[in-house]
Amino acid sequence: MSRRQSRGTARERLAHQLRSLRAARSLSQEALADLAELHRTYVGSIERCERNVSLDNVERLAAALGVDIQDLLSPL
Amino acid sequence: MSRRQSRGTARERLAHQLRSLRAARSLSQEALADLAELHRTYVGSIERCERNVSLDNVERLAAALGVDIQDLLSPL
Repeated sequence: MSRRQSRGTARERLAHQLRSLRAARSLSQEALADLAELHRTYVGSIERCERNVSLDNVERLAAALGVDIQDLLSPL
Repeated sequence: MSRRQSRGTARERLAHQLRSLRAARSLSQEALADLAELHRTYVGSIERCERNVSLDNVERLAAALGVDIQDLLSPL
């Protein structure tokens, strides 16, 4: 297993961090979507690793959660 | 100035880190594009902050440079 795989792909990291930070703030997927001004089904698809999210949207999600963009890509 | 602005937008961070890491490895934009299997004009447009790059492509660039994806988004 490569170093990259063992620490998670970018999609897996983002999915994990979103779920974790959302839970810590007691936010539903819909509530986070509203805060980030994204479609409400979009957050769910990110958390299922289905989306190749753009940096601009990673930035919106980070701002909505009050964290740095790097925090959304922390290794698993 | 907000904390986010003062540390650079995601596009600005990626542009800066790409230029810096590429220079440290004496790689041209074209050489990095070849390594990452991206179009050769694409790296230039990222470094000019013109592109809303997807996470999958950030991951390809990180792998080509031998760094973690978080390193490409380090604060300015």
